[in-house]
Amino acid sequence: MTWGGIEAGGTKFVCAVSKAPPRLDARVEIATTTPEETLAKVIAFFREWRDLRSIGIGSFGPLGLDPDSPAYGLVTHTPKDGWQATPLVAPLEQALGVSVALDTDVNAALWGEHRHGALRDHRTALYLTVGTGIGGGALVDGRILHGASHPEMGHQRVPQPKGDAFPGICPFHGACWEGLASGPAMQRRWAAPPESLADDHPAWRIEAELLALGLANLVLTVAPTRVVLGGGVGTRSGLRERVSQQLTTVLAGYVRDPAPDTLLVAPALGGDSGVVGAIELGRA
Amino acid sequence: MTWGGIEAGGTKFVCAVSKAPPRLDARVEIATTTPEETLAKVIAFFREWRDLRSIGIGSFGPLGLDPDSPAYGLVTHTPKDGWQATPLVAPLEQALGVSVALDTDVNAALWGEHRHGALRDHRTALYLTVGTGIGGGALVDGRILHGASHPEMGHQRVPQPKGDAFPGICPFHGACWEGLASGPAMQRRWAAPPESLADDHPAWRIEAELLALGLANLVLTVAPTRVVLGGGVGTRSGLRERVSQQLTTVLAGYVRDPAPDTLLVAPALGGDSGVVGAIELGRA
Repeated sequence: MTWGGIEAGGTKFVCAVSKAPPRLDARVEIATTTPEETLAKVIAFFREWRDLRSIGIGSFGPLGLDPDSPAYGLVTHTPKDGWQATPLVAPLEQALGVSVALDTDVNAALWGEHRHGALRDHRTALYLTVGTGIGGGALVDGRILHGASHPEMGHQRVPQPKGDAFPGICPFHGACWEGLASGPAMQRRWAAPPESLADDHPAWRIEAELLALGLANLVLTVAPTRVVLGGGVGTRSGLRERVSQQLTTVLAGYVRDPAPDTLLVAPALGGDSGVVGAIELGRA
Repeated sequence: MTWGGIEAGGTKFVCAVSKAPPRLDARVEIATTTPEETLAKVIAFFREWRDLRSIGIGSFGPLGLDPDSPAYGLVTHTPKDGWQATPLVAPLEQALGVSVALDTDVNAALWGEHRHGALRDHRTALYLTVGTGIGGGALVDGRILHGASHPEMGHQRVPQPKGDAFPGICPFHGACWEGLASGPAMQRRWAAPPESLADDHPAWRIEAELLALGLANLVLTVAPTRVVLGGGVGTRSGLRERVSQQLTTVLAGYVRDPAPDTLLVAPALGGDSGVVGAIELGRA
Protein backbone atom coordinates (compact mmCIF):
# COMPACT_ATOMS: atom_id res chain seq x y z
CA MET A 1 0.00 0.00 0.00
CA THR A 2 1.08 3.56 -0.73
CA TRP A 3 0.06 6.71 1.11
CA GLY A 4 0.34 10.19 -0.29
CA GLY A 5 0.92 13.57 1.24
CA ILE A 6 0.95 17.19 0.11
CA GLU A 7 2.52 20.19 1.77
CA ALA A 8 0.62 22.96 -0.01
CA GLY A 9 2.41 26.30 0.18
CA GLY A 10 2.11 29.69 -1.40
CA THR A 11 5.20 29.18 -3.56
CA LYS A 12 5.24 25.40 -4.05
CA PHE A 13 3.31 22.18 -3.45
CA VAL A 14 5.53 19.38 -2.11
CA CYS A 15 3.96 16.03 -3.01
CA ALA A 16 5.28 12.69 -1.78
CA VAL A 17 4.32 9.05 -1.47
CA SER A 18 5.47 6.47 1.03
CA LYS A 19 5.00 2.78 1.70
CA ALA A 20 6.60 3.10 5.15
CA PRO A 21 6.64 6.61 6.61
CA PRO A 22 8.74 8.56 7.34
CA ARG A 23 10.73 7.12 4.40
CA LEU A 24 9.58 8.76 1.15
CA ASP A 25 9.43 6.65 -2.02
CA ALA A 26 8.97 9.66 -4.28
CA ARG A 27 8.89 13.41 -3.74
CA VAL A 28 8.21 16.21 -6.17
CA GLU A 29 7.96 19.99 -5.87
CA ILE A 30 5.38 21.76 -8.03
CA ALA A 31 5.34 25.56 -8.35
CA THR A 32 2.16 27.19 -7.04
CA THR A 33 0.58 29.00 -9.99
CA THR A 34 -3.18 28.99 -10.62
CA PRO A 35 -5.30 26.45 -8.72
CA GLU A 36 -6.25 24.66 -11.96
CA GLU A 37 -2.71 24.27 -13.24
CA THR A 38 -1.23 23.40 -9.86
CA LEU A 39 -3.85 20.79 -8.94
CA ALA A 40 -3.64 19.22 -12.42
CA LYS A 41 0.09 18.59 -11.90
CA VAL A 42 -0.54 17.28 -8.37
CA ILE A 43 -3.14 14.84 -9.67
CA ALA A 44 -0.81 13.70 -12.48
CA PHE A 45 1.90 12.90 -9.91
CA PHE A 46 -0.36 10.78 -7.69
CA ARG A 47 -2.06 9.00 -10.63
CA GLU A 48 1.16 7.04 -11.20
CA TRP A 49 0.67 5.17 -7.91
CA ARG A 50 -1.88 2.43 -8.51
CA ASP A 51 -2.01 1.23 -4.90
CA LEU A 52 -2.50 4.73 -3.47
CA ARG A 53 -4.82 4.54 -0.42
CA SER A 54 -5.11 8.08 0.88
CA ILE A 55 -3.80 11.61 0.61
CA GLY A 56 -3.24 14.00 3.46
CA ILE A 57 -2.84 17.72 2.82
CA GLY A 58 -1.14 20.27 5.04
CA SER A 59 -2.01 23.59 3.45
CA PHE A 60 -1.61 27.33 3.71
CA GLY A 61 -4.86 28.97 4.74
CA PRO A 62 -7.11 30.03 6.22
CA LEU A 63 -8.90 26.74 5.61
CA GLY A 64 -12.40 25.40 6.08
CA LEU A 65 -11.90 22.48 8.48
CA ASP A 66 -15.40 21.96 9.87
CA PRO A 67 -16.84 18.89 8.08
CA ASP A 68 -20.35 20.23 8.64
CA SER A 69 -19.64 23.55 6.93
CA PRO A 70 -20.07 24.26 3.20
CA ALA A 71 -16.55 25.75 3.39
CA TYR A 72 -15.06 22.35 4.33
CA GLY A 73 -12.04 21.43 2.26
CA LEU A 74 -11.47 24.92 0.87
CA VAL A 75 -8.77 27.51 1.12
CA THR A 76 -11.06 30.35 2.24
CA HIS A 77 -10.23 34.10 2.54
CA THR A 78 -6.51 33.86 1.75
CA PRO A 79 -4.67 36.97 0.55
CA LYS A 80 -3.09 34.76 -2.17
CA ASP A 81 -4.38 35.90 -5.58
CA GLY A 82 -6.66 33.47 -7.35
CA TRP A 83 -6.83 31.02 -4.42
CA GLN A 84 -9.78 32.48 -2.52
CA ALA A 85 -12.49 29.82 -1.98
CA THR A 86 -10.45 27.14 -3.77
CA PRO A 87 -11.50 23.53 -3.11
CA LEU A 88 -8.55 21.25 -2.29
CA VAL A 89 -10.22 18.09 -1.00
CA ALA A 90 -13.02 17.49 -3.53
CA PRO A 91 -10.98 17.70 -6.78
CA LEU A 92 -8.40 15.22 -5.47
CA GLU A 93 -11.02 12.81 -4.14
CA GLN A 94 -12.86 12.90 -7.44
CA ALA A 95 -9.82 12.57 -9.68
CA LEU A 96 -8.00 9.91 -7.65
CA GLY A 97 -10.80 8.00 -5.89
CA VAL A 98 -9.06 7.99 -2.51
CA SER A 99 -9.93 9.59 0.81
CA VAL A 100 -8.34 12.99 1.33
CA ALA A 101 -7.65 14.58 4.74
CA LEU A 102 -6.94 18.27 5.24
CA ASP A 103 -5.30 20.33 7.95
CA THR A 104 -3.08 23.40 8.14
CA ASP A 105 0.57 23.31 7.04
CA VAL A 106 1.74 23.81 10.63
CA ASN A 107 -0.59 21.15 12.00
CA ALA A 108 0.77 18.71 9.41
CA ALA A 109 4.35 19.56 10.42
CA LEU A 110 3.36 19.22 14.09
CA TRP A 111 1.88 15.80 13.35
CA GLY A 112 4.94 14.70 11.39
CA GLU A 113 7.23 15.62 14.27
CA HIS A 114 4.85 13.92 16.72
CA ARG A 115 4.67 10.66 14.78
CA HIS A 116 8.29 10.42 13.61
CA GLY A 117 10.36 13.30 14.91
CA ALA A 118 11.24 15.50 17.85
CA LEU A 119 7.79 15.32 19.50
CA ARG A 120 7.47 11.52 19.51
CA ASP A 121 7.26 11.15 23.28
CA HIS A 122 5.34 14.37 23.89
CA ARG A 123 1.59 14.67 24.33
CA THR A 124 1.30 18.44 24.74
CA ALA A 125 3.61 20.35 22.45
CA LEU A 126 3.88 23.10 19.87
CA TYR A 127 5.25 23.35 16.33
CA LEU A 128 6.18 26.89 15.39
CA THR A 129 7.38 28.05 12.00
CA VAL A 130 9.00 31.42 11.41
CA GLY A 131 9.59 32.23 7.76
CA THR A 132 7.39 34.04 5.25
CA GLY A 133 4.92 34.21 8.14
CA ILE A 134 4.66 32.92 11.69
CA GLY A 135 2.41 29.94 12.24
CA GLY A 136 1.85 27.52 15.06
CA GLY A 137 0.12 24.23 15.75
CA ALA A 138 -0.64 22.76 19.17
CA LEU A 139 -0.76 19.13 20.25
CA VAL A 140 -2.93 18.76 23.36
CA ASP A 141 -3.11 15.41 25.09
CA GLY A 142 -1.89 13.66 21.94
CA ARG A 143 -4.36 15.32 19.58
CA ILE A 144 -4.10 18.30 17.27
CA LEU A 145 -5.95 21.28 18.75
CA HIS A 146 -8.89 22.35 16.57
CA GLY A 147 -11.32 24.73 18.19
CA ALA A 148 -13.74 27.06 16.46
CA SER A 149 -11.16 27.01 13.68
CA HIS A 150 -7.43 26.37 13.47
CA PRO A 151 -5.20 28.55 15.66
CA GLU A 152 -3.63 31.69 14.23
CA MET A 153 -0.90 32.11 16.83
CA GLY A 154 1.23 34.23 14.53
CA HIS A 155 -1.23 37.09 14.84
CA GLN A 156 -0.98 37.49 18.62
CA ARG A 157 0.17 40.87 19.97
CA VAL A 158 3.46 41.21 21.84
CA PRO A 159 5.14 44.30 23.31
CA GLN A 160 7.80 45.93 21.11
CA PRO A 161 11.32 46.45 22.46
CA LYS A 162 11.71 49.83 24.23
CA GLY A 163 11.98 52.68 21.73
CA ASP A 164 11.17 50.47 18.74
CA ALA A 165 8.82 52.32 16.40
CA PHE A 166 8.73 49.78 13.53
CA PRO A 167 5.04 49.75 12.47
CA GLY A 168 4.99 46.09 11.39
CA ILE A 169 3.83 44.72 8.05
CA CYS A 170 0.75 42.61 8.78
CA PRO A 171 -2.05 43.80 6.49
CA PHE A 172 -4.58 42.94 9.25
CA HIS A 173 -2.81 43.99 12.45
CA GLY A 174 0.32 45.98 11.58
CA ALA A 175 2.63 45.22 14.48
CA CYS A 176 1.34 41.79 15.52
CA TRP A 177 3.93 39.04 16.14
CA GLU A 178 4.09 38.01 12.48
CA GLY A 179 3.99 41.65 11.44
CA LEU A 180 7.09 42.32 13.56
CA ALA A 181 9.12 39.12 13.36
CA SER A 182 8.44 37.16 10.15
CA GLY A 183 11.09 37.00 7.43
CA PRO A 184 9.39 39.72 5.33
CA ALA A 185 9.11 41.91 8.46
CA MET A 186 12.86 41.57 9.03
CA GLN A 187 13.47 42.37 5.37
CA ARG A 188 11.37 45.53 5.62
CA ARG A 189 12.92 46.61 8.92
CA TRP A 190 16.54 46.13 7.84
CA ALA A 191 16.13 46.67 4.09
CA ALA A 192 17.91 43.39 3.48
CA PRO A 193 16.91 39.73 3.31
CA PRO A 194 17.34 38.08 6.73
CA GLU A 195 19.70 35.44 5.35
CA SER A 196 22.10 38.24 4.33
CA LEU A 197 22.35 39.68 7.86
CA ALA A 198 25.55 38.68 9.72
CA ASP A 199 25.29 36.75 12.98
CA ASP A 200 26.38 39.82 14.97
CA HIS A 201 23.84 42.15 13.33
CA PRO A 202 21.50 43.73 15.93
CA ALA A 203 18.60 42.32 13.89
CA TRP A 204 19.13 38.91 15.49
CA ARG A 205 19.03 40.25 19.05
CA ILE A 206 15.70 41.96 18.37
CA GLU A 207 14.40 38.91 16.49
CA ALA A 208 15.29 36.63 19.42
CA GLU A 209 13.58 39.02 21.86
CA LEU A 210 10.41 39.21 19.79
CA LEU A 211 10.25 35.46 19.23
CA ALA A 212 10.79 34.81 22.96
CA LEU A 213 7.96 37.18 23.92
CA GLY A 214 5.42 35.45 21.70
CA LEU A 215 6.72 32.03 22.61
CA ALA A 216 6.41 32.84 26.33
CA ASN A 217 2.73 33.69 25.78
CA LEU A 218 2.17 30.36 24.02
CA VAL A 219 4.03 28.43 26.74
CA LEU A 220 1.96 30.13 29.47
CA THR A 221 -1.25 29.27 27.60
CA VAL A 222 -0.68 25.71 26.36
CA ALA A 223 1.98 24.46 28.85
CA PRO A 224 3.85 22.36 26.25
CA THR A 225 6.58 19.90 27.25
CA ARG A 226 8.49 20.67 24.02
CA VAL A 227 8.38 23.22 21.18
CA VAL A 228 9.79 22.67 17.68
CA LEU A 229 11.04 25.84 16.01
CA GLY A 230 11.02 25.46 12.21
CA GLY A 231 10.90 27.67 9.14
CA GLY A 232 13.52 29.54 7.15
CA VAL A 233 14.14 32.15 9.84
CA GLY A 234 13.41 29.82 12.76
CA THR A 235 16.15 27.39 11.77
CA ARG A 236 18.76 30.11 11.21
CA SER A 237 21.97 28.93 12.83
CA GLY A 238 22.33 30.22 16.40
CA LEU A 239 18.88 31.78 16.63
CA ARG A 240 17.20 28.99 18.59
CA GLU A 241 19.82 29.22 21.35
CA ARG A 242 19.31 32.99 21.61
CA VAL A 243 15.53 32.60 21.77
CA SER A 244 15.92 29.97 24.51
CA GLN A 245 18.03 32.35 26.58
CA GLN A 246 15.55 35.19 26.10
CA LEU A 247 12.65 32.88 26.95
CA THR A 248 14.20 32.12 30.32
CA THR A 249 14.54 35.87 30.94
CA VAL A 250 10.96 36.63 29.89
CA LEU A 251 9.40 33.85 31.99
CA ALA A 252 11.48 35.01 34.97
CA GLY A 253 11.27 31.82 36.97
CA TYR A 254 7.53 31.40 36.55
CA VAL A 255 7.66 28.23 34.46
CA ARG A 256 10.16 25.74 35.95
CA ASP A 257 9.24 22.36 34.58
CA PRO A 258 10.51 21.84 31.96
CA ALA A 259 13.28 24.43 32.27
CA PRO A 260 12.59 27.08 29.59
CA ASP A 261 16.07 26.72 28.08
CA THR A 262 15.34 23.05 27.27
CA LEU A 263 11.92 23.61 25.66
CA LEU A 264 12.98 24.62 22.15
CA VAL A 265 14.31 22.09 19.63
CA ALA A 266 14.91 21.95 15.89
CA PRO A 267 12.64 19.88 13.60
CA ALA A 268 14.00 16.30 13.52
CA LEU A 269 12.57 15.74 10.03
CA GLY A 270 14.22 18.86 8.63
CA GLY A 271 12.25 20.20 5.69
CA ASP A 272 10.02 17.10 5.50
CA SER A 273 8.03 17.52 8.74
CA GLY A 274 5.10 18.89 6.74
CA VAL A 275 4.88 16.33 3.97
CA VAL A 276 5.52 13.37 6.31
CA GLY A 277 2.87 14.72 8.66
CA ALA A 278 0.48 15.16 5.74
CA ILE A 279 0.97 11.50 4.78
CA GLU A 280 0.21 10.48 8.37
CA LEU A 281 -2.89 12.71 8.50
CA GLY A 282 -4.22 10.85 5.46
CA ARG A 283 -3.48 7.43 6.98
CA ALA A 284 -5.29 8.19 10.24
CA MET B 1 -24.75 9.83 47.92
CA THR B 2 -23.14 13.16 48.65
CA TRP B 3 -20.25 14.78 46.80
CA GLY B 4 -18.08 17.53 48.19
CA GLY B 5 -16.21 20.41 46.64
CA ILE B 6 -13.78 23.08 47.77
CA GLU B 7 -12.90 26.33 46.10
CA ALA B 8 -9.64 27.11 47.86
CA GLY B 9 -8.68 30.76 47.65
CA GLY B 10 -6.13 33.05 49.23
CA THR B 11 -8.74 34.78 51.39
CA LYS B 12 -11.35 32.04 51.88
CA PHE B 13 -12.13 28.37 51.31
CA VAL B 14 -15.65 27.81 49.98
CA CYS B 15 -16.78 24.29 50.88
CA ALA B 16 -20.00 22.74 49.66
CA VAL B 17 -21.78 19.40 49.37
CA SER B 18 -24.38 18.28 46.87
CA LYS B 19 -26.54 15.24 46.21
CA ALA B 20 -27.51 16.56 42.76
CA PRO B 21 -25.15 19.15 41.31
CA PRO B 22 -25.37 22.00 40.54
CA ARG B 23 -27.80 22.31 43.50
CA LEU B 24 -25.85 22.76 46.74
CA ASP B 25 -27.15 21.11 49.92
CA ALA B 26 -24.76 23.03 52.16
CA ARG B 27 -22.17 25.71 51.61
CA VAL B 28 -19.75 27.31 54.04
CA GLU B 29 -17.00 29.91 53.74
CA ILE B 30 -13.90 29.47 55.88
CA ALA B 31 -11.30 32.24 56.19
CA THR B 32 -7.86 31.27 54.88
CA THR B 33 -5.46 31.53 57.83
CA THR B 34 -2.70 28.96 58.46
CA PRO B 35 -2.88 25.66 56.57
CA GLU B 36 -3.39 23.69 59.82
CA GLU B 37 -6.26 25.82 61.11
CA THR B 38 -7.94 26.19 57.72
CA LEU B 39 -7.79 22.50 56.82
CA ALA B 40 -9.00 21.48 60.30
CA LYS B 41 -12.16 23.55 59.77
CA VAL B 42 -12.59 22.16 56.26
CA ILE B 43 -12.34 18.61 57.58
CA ALA B 44 -14.82 19.35 60.36
CA PHE B 45 -17.36 20.61 57.80
CA PHE B 46 -17.14 17.52 55.60
CA ARG B 47 -17.09 15.06 58.53
CA GLU B 48 -20.78 15.81 59.11
CA TRP B 49 -21.71 14.09 55.85
CA ARG B 50 -21.68 10.34 56.44
CA ASP B 51 -22.43 9.37 52.85
CA LEU B 52 -19.69 11.60 51.39
CA ARG B 53 -18.13 9.88 48.37
CA SER B 54 -15.52 12.28 47.05
CA ILE B 55 -14.09 15.75 47.31
CA GLY B 56 -12.89 17.89 44.43
CA ILE B 57 -10.65 20.89 45.06
CA GLY B 58 -10.17 23.91 42.83
CA SER B 59 -7.27 25.75 44.41
CA PHE B 60 -5.03 28.77 44.14
CA GLY B 61 -1.53 27.74 43.13
CA PRO B 62 0.84 27.00 41.63
CA LEU B 63 -0.08 23.37 42.23
CA GLY B 64 1.57 20.00 41.76
CA LEU B 65 -0.79 18.21 39.38
CA ASP B 66 1.42 15.43 37.99
CA PRO B 67 0.40 12.22 39.81
CA ASP B 68 3.90 10.81 39.23
CA SER B 69 5.63 13.75 40.92
CA PRO B 70 6.42 13.99 44.66
CA ALA B 71 4.86 17.47 44.45
CA TYR B 72 1.46 15.97 43.54
CA GLY B 73 -1.38 17.35 45.60
CA LEU B 74 0.57 20.31 46.99
CA VAL B 75 0.35 24.05 46.72
CA THR B 76 3.96 24.58 45.59
CA HIS B 77 5.91 27.88 45.28
CA THR B 78 3.02 30.22 46.06
CA PRO B 79 3.78 33.77 47.24
CA LYS B 80 1.12 33.22 49.98
CA ASP B 81 2.86 33.21 53.39
CA GLY B 82 2.87 29.88 55.17
CA TRP B 83 1.32 27.97 52.25
CA GLN B 84 4.48 27.03 50.33
CA ALA B 85 4.66 23.23 49.80
CA THR B 86 1.35 22.65 51.61
CA PRO B 87 -0.34 19.28 50.96
CA LEU B 88 -4.06 19.62 50.17
CA VAL B 89 -4.97 16.17 48.88
CA ALA B 90 -3.31 13.83 51.41
CA PRO B 91 -4.66 15.36 54.65
CA LEU B 92 -8.24 15.30 53.36
CA GLU B 93 -7.96 11.75 52.03
CA GLN B 94 -6.53 10.56 55.35
CA ALA B 95 -8.98 12.40 57.58
CA LEU B 96 -12.13 11.67 55.56
CA GLY B 97 -11.38 8.38 53.82
CA VAL B 98 -12.68 9.54 50.43
CA SER B 99 -10.96 10.11 47.11
CA VAL B 100 -9.83 13.70 46.56
CA ALA B 101 -9.26 15.31 43.16
CA LEU B 102 -7.28 18.50 42.65
CA ASP B 103 -7.08 21.13 39.93
CA THR B 104 -6.63 24.88 39.73
CA ASP B 105 -9.37 27.28 40.83
CA VAL B 106 -9.88 28.44 37.24
CA ASN B 107 -9.99 24.89 35.88
CA ALA B 108 -12.64 24.04 38.46
CA ALA B 109 -14.68 27.10 37.45
CA LEU B 110 -14.21 26.16 33.78
CA TRP B 111 -15.43 22.63 34.52
CA GLY B 112 -18.43 23.93 36.50
CA GLU B 113 -19.48 26.15 33.60
CA HIS B 114 -18.90 23.27 31.16
CA ARG B 115 -20.98 20.76 33.12
CA HIS B 116 -23.79 23.03 34.28
CA GLY B 117 -23.35 26.57 32.97
CA ALA B 118 -22.52 28.76 30.02
CA LEU B 119 -20.11 26.28 28.37
CA ARG B 120 -22.44 23.28 28.37
CA ASP B 121 -22.55 22.85 24.60
CA HIS B 122 -18.97 23.93 23.99
CA ARG B 123 -16.02 21.58 23.55
CA THR B 124 -13.24 24.15 23.13
CA ALA B 125 -13.63 27.13 25.41
CA LEU B 126 -11.97 29.34 27.99
CA TYR B 127 -12.80 30.46 31.51
CA LEU B 128 -11.06 33.68 32.45
CA THR B 129 -11.14 35.37 35.84
CA VAL B 130 -10.06 38.95 36.42
CA GLY B 131 -9.93 39.95 40.07
CA THR B 132 -7.08 39.78 42.57
CA GLY B 133 -5.15 38.22 39.69
CA ILE B 134 -5.84 37.10 36.14
CA GLY B 135 -6.21 33.38 35.59
CA GLY B 136 -7.45 31.21 32.78
CA GLY B 137 -8.42 27.63 32.10
CA ALA B 138 -8.87 26.01 28.71
CA LEU B 139 -11.25 23.28 27.63
CA VAL B 140 -9.92 21.51 24.53
CA ASP B 141 -12.08 18.92 22.80
CA GLY B 142 -14.14 18.47 25.96
CA ARG B 143 -11.21 18.01 28.33
CA ILE B 144 -9.36 20.40 30.62
CA LEU B 145 -5.99 21.33 29.14
CA HIS B 146 -3.10 20.10 31.29
CA GLY B 147 0.29 20.19 29.69
CA ALA B 148 3.65 20.26 31.40
CA SER B 149 1.75 22.00 34.17
CA HIS B 150 -1.42 24.06 34.38
CA PRO B 151 -1.59 27.18 32.18
CA GLU B 152 -0.60 30.55 33.61
CA MET B 153 -2.33 32.70 31.00
CA GLY B 154 -2.45 35.71 33.29
CA HIS B 155 1.30 36.13 32.98
CA GLN B 156 1.38 36.59 29.21
CA ARG B 157 2.84 39.84 27.83
CA VAL B 158 0.65 42.33 25.97
CA PRO B 159 1.52 45.73 24.48
CA GLN B 160 0.66 48.72 26.67
CA PRO B 161 -1.54 51.50 25.33
CA LYS B 162 0.46 54.23 23.54
CA GLY B 163 2.21 56.52 26.01
CA ASP B 164 1.31 54.36 29.01
CA ALA B 165 4.30 54.12 31.35
CA PHE B 166 2.65 52.21 34.24
CA PRO B 167 5.31 49.69 35.29
CA GLY B 168 2.88 46.98 36.38
CA ILE B 169 2.80 45.20 39.73
CA CYS B 170 3.61 41.54 39.02
CA PRO B 171 6.49 40.51 41.30
CA PHE B 172 7.75 38.16 38.56
CA HIS B 173 7.16 40.12 35.36
CA GLY B 174 6.22 43.70 36.21
CA ALA B 175 4.00 44.71 33.31
CA CYS B 176 2.61 41.32 32.28
CA TRP B 177 -1.16 41.05 31.67
CA GLU B 178 -1.96 40.43 35.33
CA GLY B 179 0.59 43.04 36.37
CA LEU B 180 -1.23 45.62 34.24
CA ALA B 181 -4.90 44.66 34.44
CA SER B 182 -5.73 42.77 37.66
CA GLY B 183 -7.78 44.47 40.38
CA PRO B 184 -4.68 45.32 42.48
CA ALA B 185 -2.98 46.72 39.33
CA MET B 186 -5.96 49.03 38.76
CA GLN B 187 -5.86 50.02 42.42
CA ARG B 188 -2.15 50.90 42.16
CA ARG B 189 -2.58 52.77 38.87
CA TRP B 190 -5.56 54.88 39.94
CA ALA B 191 -4.88 54.99 43.69
CA ALA B 192 -8.44 53.81 44.32
CA PRO B 193 -10.18 50.45 44.49
CA PRO B 194 -11.62 49.52 41.06
CA GLU B 195 -15.16 49.20 42.45
CA SER B 196 -15.01 52.89 43.45
CA LEU B 197 -14.21 54.09 39.92
CA ALA B 198 -17.22 55.52 38.07
CA ASP B 199 -18.36 53.92 34.80
CA ASP B 200 -17.09 56.91 32.81
CA HIS B 201 -13.62 56.91 34.44
CA PRO B 202 -10.83 56.45 31.84
CA ALA B 203 -9.67 53.45 33.89
CA TRP B 204 -12.38 51.31 32.29
CA ARG B 205 -11.40 52.23 28.74
CA ILE B 206 -7.79 51.21 29.42
CA GLU B 207 -8.91 48.09 31.30
CA ALA B 208 -11.13 47.01 28.38
CA GLU B 209 -8.25 47.60 25.94
CA LEU B 210 -5.80 45.58 28.02
CA LEU B 211 -8.24 42.73 28.57
CA ALA B 212 -9.07 42.62 24.85
CA LEU B 213 -5.39 42.41 23.89
CA GLY B 214 -4.69 39.42 26.12
CA LEU B 215 -7.98 37.81 25.21
CA ALA B 216 -7.20 38.18 21.49
CA ASN B 217 -3.94 36.29 22.06
CA LEU B 218 -5.79 33.48 23.82
CA VAL B 219 -8.45 33.32 21.11
CA LEU B 220 -5.80 33.15 18.37
CA THR B 221 -4.02 30.34 20.25
CA VAL B 222 -6.86 28.12 21.49
CA ALA B 223 -9.66 29.01 19.01
CA PRO B 224 -12.45 28.75 21.60
CA THR B 225 -16.11 28.80 20.62
CA ARG B 226 -16.99 30.67 23.84
CA VAL B 227 -15.18 32.49 26.67
CA VAL B 228 -16.58 33.04 30.17
CA LEU B 229 -15.34 36.22 31.83
CA GLY B 230 -15.57 35.95 35.63
CA GLY B 231 -13.97 37.50 38.69
CA GLY B 232 -14.63 40.66 40.68
CA VAL B 233 -13.31 42.98 37.98
CA GLY B 234 -14.37 40.76 35.05
CA THR B 235 -18.03 40.85 36.06
CA ARG B 236 -18.10 44.63 36.59
CA SER B 237 -21.25 45.93 34.98
CA GLY B 238 -20.65 47.12 31.40
CA LEU B 239 -17.05 45.92 31.17
CA ARG B 240 -17.72 42.73 29.22
CA GLU B 241 -19.49 44.66 26.46
CA ARG B 242 -16.55 47.07 26.18
CA VAL B 243 -14.05 44.22 26.03
CA SER B 244 -16.12 42.53 23.30
CA GLN B 245 -16.05 45.71 21.22
CA GLN B 246 -12.30 46.11 21.69
CA LEU B 247 -11.74 42.45 20.86
CA THR B 248 -13.40 42.94 17.49
CA THR B 249 -11.11 45.91 16.87
CA VAL B 250 -7.96 44.04 17.92
CA LEU B 251 -8.72 40.94 15.82
CA ALA B 252 -9.46 43.20 12.85
CA GLY B 253 -11.48 40.70 10.86
CA TYR B 254 -9.03 37.84 11.28
CA VAL B 255 -11.28 35.62 13.37
CA ARG B 256 -14.79 35.48 11.89
CA ASP B 257 -16.40 32.38 13.30
CA PRO B 258 -17.68 32.87 15.90
CA ALA B 259 -17.94 36.65 15.57
CA PRO B 260 -15.65 38.14 18.24
CA ASP B 261 -18.45 40.25 19.74
CA THR B 262 -20.41 37.06 20.56
CA LEU B 263 -17.52 35.15 22.19
CA LEU B 264 -17.60 36.63 25.68
CA VAL B 265 -20.30 35.69 28.21
CA ALA B 266 -20.84 36.00 31.97
CA PRO B 267 -20.58 32.95 34.26
CA ALA B 268 -23.99 31.24 34.34
CA LEU B 269 -23.32 29.87 37.85
CA GLY B 270 -22.37 33.30 39.21
CA GLY B 271 -20.03 32.93 42.17
CA ASP B 272 -20.51 29.14 42.38
CA SER B 273 -18.78 28.09 39.14
CA GLY B 274 -15.69 27.12 41.13
CA VAL B 275 -17.26 25.10 43.90
CA VAL B 276 -19.74 23.36 41.58
CA GLY B 277 -16.87 22.54 39.22
CA ALA B 278 -14.83 21.24 42.15
CA ILE B 279 -17.68 18.91 43.13
CA GLU B 280 -17.82 17.62 39.54
CA LEU B 281 -14.03 17.17 39.40
CA GLY B 282 -14.30 14.90 42.43
CA ARG B 283 -17.16 12.87 40.93
CA ALA B 284 -15.30 12.20 37.68
